[in-house]
Amino acid sequence: MAEAKKSGGAGLRGQVAGETALCTVGKTGTGLTYRGYDVSDLADNAQFEEVAYLLLRGKLPNQQELDAYKKKLQTLRGLPHALKTVLENIPKTAHPMDVMRTGCSMLGNLETEKDFSEQDDKIDRMLALFPSIITYWYRFAHEGVRIETSSDVDSIGGHFLELLHGKKPSELHERVMNVSLILYAEHEFNASTFTARVCASTLSDIHSCVTGAIGTLRGPLHGGANEAAMELIQKFQSADEAEKGVMGMLERKEKIMGFGHAVYTESDPRNVIIKKWSEKLSREAGDTVLYPVSVRCEEVMWREKKLFCNADFFHASTYHFMGIPTELFTPIFVMSRVSGWTAHVKEQRANNRIIRPSADYTGPDHAEWLPIDKRA
Amino acid sequence: MAEAKKSGGAGLRGQVAGETALCTVGKTGTGLTYRGYDVSDLADNAQFEEVAYLLLRGKLPNQQELDAYKKKLQTLRGLPHALKTVLENIPKTAHPMDVMRTGCSMLGNLETEKDFSEQDDKIDRMLALFPSIITYWYRFAHEGVRIETSSDVDSIGGHFLELLHGKKPSELHERVMNVSLILYAEHEFNASTFTARVCASTLSDIHSCVTGAIGTLRGPLHGGANEAAMELIQKFQSADEAEKGVMGMLERKEKIMGFGHAVYTESDPRNVIIKKWSEKLSREAGDTVLYPVSVRCEEVMWREKKLFCNADFFHASTYHFMGIPTELFTPIFVMSRVSGWTAHVKEQRANNRIIRPSADYTGPDHAEWLPIDKRA
Repeated sequence: MAEAKKSGGAGLRGQVAGETALCTVGKTGTGLTYRGYDVSDLADNAQFEEVAYLLLRGKLPNQQELDAYKKKLQTLRGLPHALKTVLENIPKTAHPMDVMRTGCSMLGNLETEKDFSEQDDKIDRMLALFPSIITYWYRFAHEGVRIETSSDVDSIGGHFLELLHGKKPSELHERVMNVSLILYAEHEFNASTFTARVCASTLSDIHSCVTGAIGTLRGPLHGGANEAAMELIQKFQSADEAEKGVMGMLERKEKIMGFGHAVYTESDPRNVIIKKWSEKLSREAGDTVLYPVSVRCEEVMWREKKLFCNADFFHASTYHFMGIPTELFTPIFVMSRVSGWTAHVKEQRANNRIIRPSADYTGPDHAEWLPIDKRA
Repeated sequence: MAEAKKSGGAGLRGQVAGETALCTVGKTGTGLTYRGYDVSDLADNAQFEEVAYLLLRGKLPNQQELDAYKKKLQTLRGLPHALKTVLENIPKTAHPMDVMRTGCSMLGNLETEKDFSEQDDKIDRMLALFPSIITYWYRFAHEGVRIETSSDVDSIGGHFLELLHGKKPSELHERVMNVSLILYAEHEFNASTFTARVCASTLSDIHSCVTGAIGTLRGPLHGGANEAAMELIQKFQSADEAEKGVMGMLERKEKIMGFGHAVYTESDPRNVIIKKWSEKLSREAGDTVLYPVSVRCEEVMWREKKLFCNADFFHASTYHFMGIPTELFTPIFVMSRVSGWTAHVKEQRANNRIIRPSADYTGPDHAEWLPIDKRA
């Protein structure tokens, strides 16, 4: 038992830190389920708002419920004046995840969750507002324009694309955004979700929980792998060049992002889905480089290292084909995962005990106080 | 072993989540040590900057090192213009912990940690700037003045008091602030510190780690007990009234904050220290109510429930005697604990593995996809 405890010290791997009814990773079927539903079924058939509803309300909505939910979210896209001012004061050179974190935190000052009875409304507001936050800042910082954040497009993914590009997205692009947001929505006790739950366990407010989760997702060991994948594939002009390049990186033992996973051992169920959409977009764009390069990277990594693409790898080309700047890839992750984070916060609150682990002490046993003039 | 894991589910109580050389709680001597030094020795003899140096640099500084450290911190008190603008846009009605969280997050946009080699400078900047952030906002929101945040007072605690009151604090008050900041500086794997470590474990930046920790400390099960204690003792006009009031609360099974502790079982070593200073300030202020009321609460809680005062209870009267508004009590906790949080981040980074626990799944095994027109 002392041994069992000890092993938990390294990143709590395999240690149970709580219960969830939201998600299984690598356990059943193709390996990822949200409230029992296979992620492939959801990605093939659902809209992201439907999945957010499933995670947050506990069941798939009927048509009336979905219509009402989407309508509600659509009315919540306006940025408060003070939040606009904050975003305008963040420099163009800032890390977009710092912008998301600060935007969320500022929102907490302006529309504070006073009581947990308000949680669903606060969550819906974040779901609706995050695309506005990141695109308002991005376009103000880069183009000096103050965009209008309302739009007729009724999906969160479509809303994001419209604000980013200043025009209504195609049906295909809106569909792909839906799929992407569904794939990233939830993933059990990953580090950012666990952060949200630790924060929730002190009975803190919902904006604190999400702000902390964003900061955790910002780390290169967690979010950001799709950005790194983009940097990789952009280096190559052809599949053959990619093969040579990746082989060289493997020889030099360089880290290649977008492959393998802490929990999945044989494949990431999200890869086959996003890869299919990447191919479709590649054809639409008349691309002859990025998609073939990506496929070759996948082949080489499997052949040489038995490492499979995770959810992030084909997301890189997918987002790129839709004209999304690389630095906004991880903020899209936030727009999606906020549904999972907040579903976990609700779950933590419903059956709470403060999360307060122990530590193995490795410091000196006892140190005698030494007056300052006696110190080396 | 399955059982051992299972028990970890409830708040990870007693589960080891990592190693630390920074602190022991409830293990040796009077029960709280920072890098082996008894907290009583530190509170009796040290300055807060000395303790922050000990936590962050691994040893007590000699005179030259301490002088240089304090000088450095003193030069770092100026607020960037954009941060002032953000603070001026936060309403008076905001929760001061939301202000701290947002101030810290905004700082991360303006002075981003690009590389871990910058960590010590970024940490020192936060230590120096947090008193400026909270007092600038507080006085702008409440009095409409834009205060100058530099000052001649060379301690962090004294700096805070000077900005808050617009005049140099007495030696006694500066000393008490030192003691208070020392007592709150570090406390092993409490929930906010653990949040900082989970965030750090994805290799995220230092501002994300601290922003997340502030949000976690905001929860009423963690920070804020000294504010609740203040609300309690302010209700009573005399010790006898307090006795009657507390007895009534106990009868009605109401929660009384500032007593007992998750880790300490017999007493909180910080209480005897801060209580002594509260008495001293009470005498200075000619108080005949608050201190006697506090002492009577302590007596009744021990007599009736065998519950002892924790660090927070006598902090309430202590802060009050120095003219600190109750809503700023928890932000002072932040000014202090940022030293412990960031020392833990440094430690996590030095020997990192991403913190990613597991969960017990309690949801449905498999749910069949149902087209929307078939749903109830």
